[in-house]
Amino acid sequence: MARWEPGARERLVVAAVDLFTEQGYDATTVAQIVQRAGVTKSTFFRYFPDKRDLLVAGQETLSTLLTEGIAGAPDGAGPLAAVAAGLERASSAFGPMNREIAPRLKAAVAASTELQERDALKSVGLAAAMTGALRERGVPEATAQLAAELGVLAFKRAFARWSEAEREEDFAPYALTALDEIRAAGAALD
Amino acid sequence: MARWEPGARERLVVAAVDLFTEQGYDATTVAQIVQRAGVTKSTFFRYFPDKRDLLVAGQETLSTLLTEGIAGAPDGAGPLAAVAAGLERASSAFGPMNREIAPRLKAAVAASTELQERDALKSVGLAAAMTGALRERGVPEATAQLAAELGVLAFKRAFARWSEAEREEDFAPYALTALDEIRAAGAALD
Repeated sequence: MARWEPGARERLVVAAVDLFTEQGYDATTVAQIVQRAGVTKSTFFRYFPDKRDLLVAGQETLSTLLTEGIAGAPDGAGPLAAVAAGLERASSAFGPMNREIAPRLKAAVAASTELQERDALKSVGLAAAMTGALRERGVPEATAQLAAELGVLAFKRAFARWSEAEREEDFAPYALTALDEIRAAGAALD
Repeated sequence: MARWEPGARERLVVAAVDLFTEQGYDATTVAQIVQRAGVTKSTFFRYFPDKRDLLVAGQETLSTLLTEGIAGAPDGAGPLAAVAAGLERASSAFGPMNREIAPRLKAAVAASTELQERDALKSVGLAAAMTGALRERGVPEATAQLAAELGVLAFKRAFARWSEAEREEDFAPYALTALDEIRAAGAALD
């Protein structure tokens, strides 16, 4: 069976997350990360402006995919259906590496306020990207913002479950199930 | 008419926010902040562990008030009504100082990724506090999380409007109006 073969970028992410987990985020230097990953410093800086960016490496890709999915939803699709289309499109970004590093990444974030802050800003960025894509479809601002927040909630719930699943699976069904759950929860708000 | 007279803590916050706006967050030192505020360094550290904490000075108070308000909502109140009670209770934390520094704080945050990250984590903390308080009331997890996120959205919308209002007003009606708008937006999600 073919094993997943990481490239330089993936090796950097895995090395960094391992070092963050072993010795903490603050104590880890770029020099240590490149040594562990077996690449040069200039390779590091080709991929990441700084150490912290390693952890949000996929954010831009993710925002782009969510935006594309929302924009490409059928004309008659409502805001939540468009968010679902965004999540489906985004699922192409989740492969073996994400699954492999997820538990270590979670531990590193749990141990560092700085990483928690970075992670929180990532959610804000994803919500803003989805809100913008929904507004482009003519969705009024308050509804767009709300639908986008539900999308972020669904994304987080789905990612937690998907990364802890027993075997490798597609991300999309996890995302759609989570979005359905959140929509159902909305019926019990009053 | 009695003018609002700031104490040492308030003077530190105002001085810091002004300096962040004038010269940026990174370039501002604790020494400069205490000089501008006319207090000693030890006074600074009595109130704030570090520079960054100035900007989330009210977060703990706010979380406590939201939690108390949600816990104190009538037995029959649904999740969103409990969130409304939390927001009403929290409004006691918003006085002249918050209004005075709001535009400068907004400018400082807009100019600094580090402050944006800190601000994003603050929202996560408020959502977690509200989720916990709702779960204490027996609200199922998904509904609690959703109601809390709507509470954070309402809080942000209300704060933006309240701080930009022509004259000094209570925060509570702003918060309740924003929550109503978000609830109404929820009807148009499908």
